[in-house]
Amino acid sequence: MIQIPPVSFLHRLADEASKETLPRFRTTLAIEEKVKPGYRFDPVTAADKEAERVLRELISSEYPDHAIVGEEFGETGTGPWKWVIDPVDGTRPFICGIPVWGTLIGLTLEGRSVMGMMSQPFTKERFWGEKEGAWAQDLSGTRRMRTRSTTDLSRAILHTNSPDRYGEFPNVRFEALRDLVQMTRYGGECYAFAMLASGQIDLCLELALQPYDIVALIPIIERAGGVVTGLRGERPEGGGHILASANEVLHERALNALRG
Amino acid sequence: MIQIPPVSFLHRLADEASKETLPRFRTTLAIEEKVKPGYRFDPVTAADKEAERVLRELISSEYPDHAIVGEEFGETGTGPWKWVIDPVDGTRPFICGIPVWGTLIGLTLEGRSVMGMMSQPFTKERFWGEKEGAWAQDLSGTRRMRTRSTTDLSRAILHTNSPDRYGEFPNVRFEALRDLVQMTRYGGECYAFAMLASGQIDLCLELALQPYDIVALIPIIERAGGVVTGLRGERPEGGGHILASANEVLHERALNALRG
Repeated sequence: MIQIPPVSFLHRLADEASKETLPRFRTTLAIEEKVKPGYRFDPVTAADKEAERVLRELISSEYPDHAIVGEEFGETGTGPWKWVIDPVDGTRPFICGIPVWGTLIGLTLEGRSVMGMMSQPFTKERFWGEKEGAWAQDLSGTRRMRTRSTTDLSRAILHTNSPDRYGEFPNVRFEALRDLVQMTRYGGECYAFAMLASGQIDLCLELALQPYDIVALIPIIERAGGVVTGLRGERPEGGGHILASANEVLHERALNALRG
Repeated sequence: MIQIPPVSFLHRLADEASKETLPRFRTTLAIEEKVKPGYRFDPVTAADKEAERVLRELISSEYPDHAIVGEEFGETGTGPWKWVIDPVDGTRPFICGIPVWGTLIGLTLEGRSVMGMMSQPFTKERFWGEKEGAWAQDLSGTRRMRTRSTTDLSRAILHTNSPDRYGEFPNVRFEALRDLVQMTRYGGECYAFAMLASGQIDLCLELALQPYDIVALIPIIERAGGVVTGLRGERPEGGGHILASANEVLHERALNALRG
């Protein structure tokens, strides 16, 4: 029988990760630079490594037959269940002191994301999605999340991290979409996906994501009523260029705009 | 004798403003649209208006001979002391649910900014500058802020809200500066200036600011060791295109890059 881990385990993981990330936030860090295609500056902090270490230890001790893939230490194990984690998603805002980074903890079953959490320890916020729904927790309590019902692009708020990389991907007509929406903001990082699930914004577009950048966010978006796919409408678990939308109608319209 | 108001009065003002802003953050708001040159979407929320109302009431009752200028209700009064306030600086992140907006409360004497506070009520953070120095307060306590000592542009982190408007201002060679720095991030709003004062980032560039967008931030930046001017090196109290830098050497280099 297939038994999905309880949500309380996600909270335990987030608790442990925050012990490694939060004390290192806004301190002077020895920052490594790692070269990735398309990024000129990709710092990886001690927070990232130490948090991934504790997440892996806890997962391995509770679910020794589950596979794990993380940004820092690659893939370990095999089997139907796979944890997909990014201890500090948004290392750039992290080093800038801006609390729009998050710890992403996702779980896939046979390649499909079934449960996920984003934790922002500085603001004391958690966002998670599981079978029962999508939820947001902050200092004032826990509430169910629902995406917006915006269907007109001309009324939609779009977030993307940076417009600077779209020149590398001429098939992604970002500017066409930007010119159709009501407002475009930059720099929201994974926090923008959480705000889409929360019903604050309508569209999130990101380029060249890794699986660990998106897997944890999928159930958060979907269980809140949103849609998240690649730009040909394919499942998003594999990463790549990813669009999330508040609803199906808006998603189709935004995909059409991006395809030209 | 000239007597500057105590810092405790800034905190009282921020306390009262937060009662009007925070309950309206992340709720569905009746959003007005106001047309401003260069902005296609500039929402003004009830938070903005109600907070400015309470700030004005409190200032007028404690300092009836001080002038006040605010985003919503214009300028009232005359005299050497003038309060310059923006209850919700960053209405766009405010409506998007992203806590990088702030309440800006500045005080000028004969046109020079002498004291200022930025309050972010969701994260429970305050940043202020006054004669004694620049300070940051959050849930973990209060600490003195110091800017970074980065002098090479190639090691500097630059923030600007959005690259989209630079085409309108060809004399501001943003792309030249962007190509020289180590990293450029977008969407930091007034929060990025606070992080510059905190020693997290090195440069903040913003276009076409109003006095109420910058006056409160000037003592925060300057008392932390930073430099903030217009692009010809002039005092920043009047607004316009504004550059803030972690130190004088970096500031000169960045100004030179922007001038081409």
